[in-house]
Amino acid sequence: MEEDRISIDEFRKIKLRVGKVVSAEEVPNSSKLLKLIISFKDEQRQVVAGIKNHYKPEELVGKKLIVVFNLKPAKLMGLTSDGMILAASDGEKLSVLTVDKDVDEGSYVS
Amino acid sequence: MEEDRISIDEFRKIKLRVGKVVSAEEVPNSSKLLKLIISFKDEQRQVVAGIKNHYKPEELVGKKLIVVFNLKPAKLMGLTSDGMILAASDGEKLSVLTVDKDVDEGSYVS
Repeated sequence: MEEDRISIDEFRKIKLRVGKVVSAEEVPNSSKLLKLIISFKDEQRQVVAGIKNHYKPEELVGKKLIVVFNLKPAKLMGLTSDGMILAASDGEKLSVLTVDKDVDEGSYVS
Repeated sequence: MEEDRISIDEFRKIKLRVGKVVSAEEVPNSSKLLKLIISFKDEQRQVVAGIKNHYKPEELVGKKLIVVFNLKPAKLMGLTSDGMILAASDGEKLSVLTVDKDVDEGSYVS
């Protein structure tokens, strides 16, 4: 519906960056959450993601993910998540977003 | 800076979907633009993208890309672009975003 269309300026409020997973581990007592440390070259962030049913922690280490970088931090199971990784789901399968070719960690998405 | 942080509701205004490239061709008289037809299962969209210096058209066909799906259509070189593909750049290299595992075309990103 046309009325739901957004402007390019609204889109540009969202900062998306490529981050490389430095470490990943299960969150104790959570059936869904993984705790990731993600590097953006100039800084590292802790990001908590509900993807445990689809990814093993060791599968994620070294992978380049796409992170909403300017989201207000959230608390999940007492852990701060400073950013949100993007993933696509068709209702059955879930995949994190990544880059097709290798670009440096910290790269901005537009 | 904290004051630039956005809420999850602001992020959710942006609809991102996985689309599969059906066809790709160079835009005549343009040094940068490719014209893509992208399928989302329930519909196809024409999207014009400034990635000609980084991708050959034939390299893109069949690839799953991430598209801002609810952006107001734009005109580029007289062609309507109904959506925008996401790409990451480190200033030198440019990569389109894609999925790490295969999910159905049309899948939503969150």
